[in-house]
Amino acid sequence: MIKVPGFLGSGISSGIKKNGKKDLGLIFSKVPAKVSGVFTTNVVKAAPVLLGMERVKSGYCQAVVINSGNANVGTGKRGLHDANLTAKLVANKLRIDESLVIPSSTGVIGVYLNMEKIKSAIPDLVSGLSEDGLSDTAEAIMTTDKFPKYAEAQISVDGKTGTICAIGKGAGMIAPNMATMLCFILTDINIDRKAQKIALKNAVDVSFNRIIVDGDMSTNDTVLILSNGTLENSPIKAGDKNYRKLEKALTKLTAEVAEMIVRDGEGATKVVRIIVKGAKNRKDAEKISRTIGSSLLVKTALYGEDANWGRVLAAAGRAGVKFDPLKVDLYFGDHRIVKNGAEIMDESKVNHILKNPSFTITLDMKGGKSSYFVVASDITMDYLKLNAQYRT
Amino acid sequence: MIKVPGFLGSGISSGIKKNGKKDLGLIFSKVPAKVSGVFTTNVVKAAPVLLGMERVKSGYCQAVVINSGNANVGTGKRGLHDANLTAKLVANKLRIDESLVIPSSTGVIGVYLNMEKIKSAIPDLVSGLSEDGLSDTAEAIMTTDKFPKYAEAQISVDGKTGTICAIGKGAGMIAPNMATMLCFILTDINIDRKAQKIALKNAVDVSFNRIIVDGDMSTNDTVLILSNGTLENSPIKAGDKNYRKLEKALTKLTAEVAEMIVRDGEGATKVVRIIVKGAKNRKDAEKISRTIGSSLLVKTALYGEDANWGRVLAAAGRAGVKFDPLKVDLYFGDHRIVKNGAEIMDESKVNHILKNPSFTITLDMKGGKSSYFVVASDITMDYLKLNAQYRT
Repeated sequence: MIKVPGFLGSGISSGIKKNGKKDLGLIFSKVPAKVSGVFTTNVVKAAPVLLGMERVKSGYCQAVVINSGNANVGTGKRGLHDANLTAKLVANKLRIDESLVIPSSTGVIGVYLNMEKIKSAIPDLVSGLSEDGLSDTAEAIMTTDKFPKYAEAQISVDGKTGTICAIGKGAGMIAPNMATMLCFILTDINIDRKAQKIALKNAVDVSFNRIIVDGDMSTNDTVLILSNGTLENSPIKAGDKNYRKLEKALTKLTAEVAEMIVRDGEGATKVVRIIVKGAKNRKDAEKISRTIGSSLLVKTALYGEDANWGRVLAAAGRAGVKFDPLKVDLYFGDHRIVKNGAEIMDESKVNHILKNPSFTITLDMKGGKSSYFVVASDITMDYLKLNAQYRT
Repeated sequence: MIKVPGFLGSGISSGIKKNGKKDLGLIFSKVPAKVSGVFTTNVVKAAPVLLGMERVKSGYCQAVVINSGNANVGTGKRGLHDANLTAKLVANKLRIDESLVIPSSTGVIGVYLNMEKIKSAIPDLVSGLSEDGLSDTAEAIMTTDKFPKYAEAQISVDGKTGTICAIGKGAGMIAPNMATMLCFILTDINIDRKAQKIALKNAVDVSFNRIIVDGDMSTNDTVLILSNGTLENSPIKAGDKNYRKLEKALTKLTAEVAEMIVRDGEGATKVVRIIVKGAKNRKDAEKISRTIGSSLLVKTALYGEDANWGRVLAAAGRAGVKFDPLKVDLYFGDHRIVKNGAEIMDESKVNHILKNPSFTITLDMKGGKSSYFVVASDITMDYLKLNAQYRT
């Protein structure tokens, strides 16, 4: 059960999804909450993302209304109008200012929202709000997700116990940065807005920005943090003693949700951490780990539990980074299988590792001190089945 | 039947491939031929590629020995030794200088060549050389290819008829530049080496460098052109009247072989030309068309014959190019389905196009005059089956 003091949630079926599953969720804070957000860097942005980016600037948000089943992107001016209208309808029913409502959407691209259905569902959505309702919200924002995703942490601030909860969704299309993923982080802790912004950015950088399912990037990605201050602590500021605790907790929560997303990667059977170390600089390490984590040949070999380490090296080689291939070492789990660019594999040991649902691949460039990691899934038959005819 | 005056070919089974199929091929020119080459840009290069890059510099080549089933990469110093030895054994048997022999390999990574098998096969390989033998060569260089690939053209030079023939192989892993592909272009036309080099580079740029199967790039890619001058024309020089004809023919041949490779893309059912036009500059157009052609979500939608045009726009949006998404038009075949960023699709017409094995997707950015295209395949269940356990 997800519960955060001062927050209410609800989630219902409005009929956007043809199968009758929940598709409309609402998060409501009893008082306006301080808000920060991180949004997709895709040039093509969904209408609600454009609106959300605008509204976050005010620094306050009291409600987030999320629909699944329709991304409201590629819908031109009408899409923007619909996003605005959705927020307005919710604001009216909640009797708050419409600028305090952020809309969010996920699902199919290029189809207009059915505003009639949304309009008639909003009264039930609002009247359904309850302290126990955030689990329904988590369910209502799912698309191809196989399970609802949330994580919770408590930290002590000024002798009081504050709660932070992250509600997320996402399965496919998670990369090169966070993608087709939504995450709403709710906390009763009072946080200075600047500190909130920095902590969110840092947490996202090592969590949602590290996960790779298929290398595509969504038009709708959104991470929001809402702090409503119900805990009545003195606001946490960047650099003060509580800030560290806060950033640590946020990082842990977002990493947990991020890993759930990879584990739920469309059809995924493996979650593999790809670590590149010994690189000349961080940028090089990042390029190489992302190229390996996105390589279709690597991902299919993982699926096949095939120790085809050559594909890992070949992917590293096309990352746009110069290195000496006769110097690198490669590990599957703890087993070094390539030393100085040539194989020294004990196949029986490695096959054992490849059968695990989760393990590490480490490439040591032996050319410097920088490192980077990504978390990647495999690409499977089920991924193809899910994605070949997603729209229909 | 492939035949080029002054060239002999052969292809046999040496036992490298466990299934007993042909795996060792030889091309021999009766006289030393002028040679130019284009090789993989992957940092990790196969041993024969390193040797071939060296030998091409001399400007002459008389024989190319190619094995399939083993890429001889990730094999360290022993790999280089084996590539050298293979060339030497062939040279000795042919009684030519070993510097005139270029070895080439394609297949699994990280396994040492079985030199015993190659050694004992070379006498048969050489004694099998014949004017009709190039078809056997084409067969011997296949890996996951479903059919041997070659194309032929004739052009008139100085009143004589010259022949150009391209023998290729390749199926998976064809991108971002030419990849796991070999192509040997043989001609009896006398071509100045500088002209040969430029013509090859230009032809490869609009053929092999435009095809995308899975976005991975091989460690072994090689395109060689051998001109033995048997036609006894005065050498074609860059800029002279015959040069245009030559480059045009080379471009046509390489484009033909490139398209065969996409059509034979591992498990591919679609060959789609992705054209980006109206871009600010060529680099932007290239980035966007390559990102669309590599997008797994686009490729799976093509496989599913699903008009999920939003994935095309979403891929364009993450290509790292700024543009106004509310200005773009998108066409499937001749049908405009998106106008100014919003859908105007007549689904019945578009579904008809998607059922074709081959069609175009055109994205008009309406922001400039530059364009670029790539030729991409879909990603299918068979692709996964082939690649999940390639090694085993």
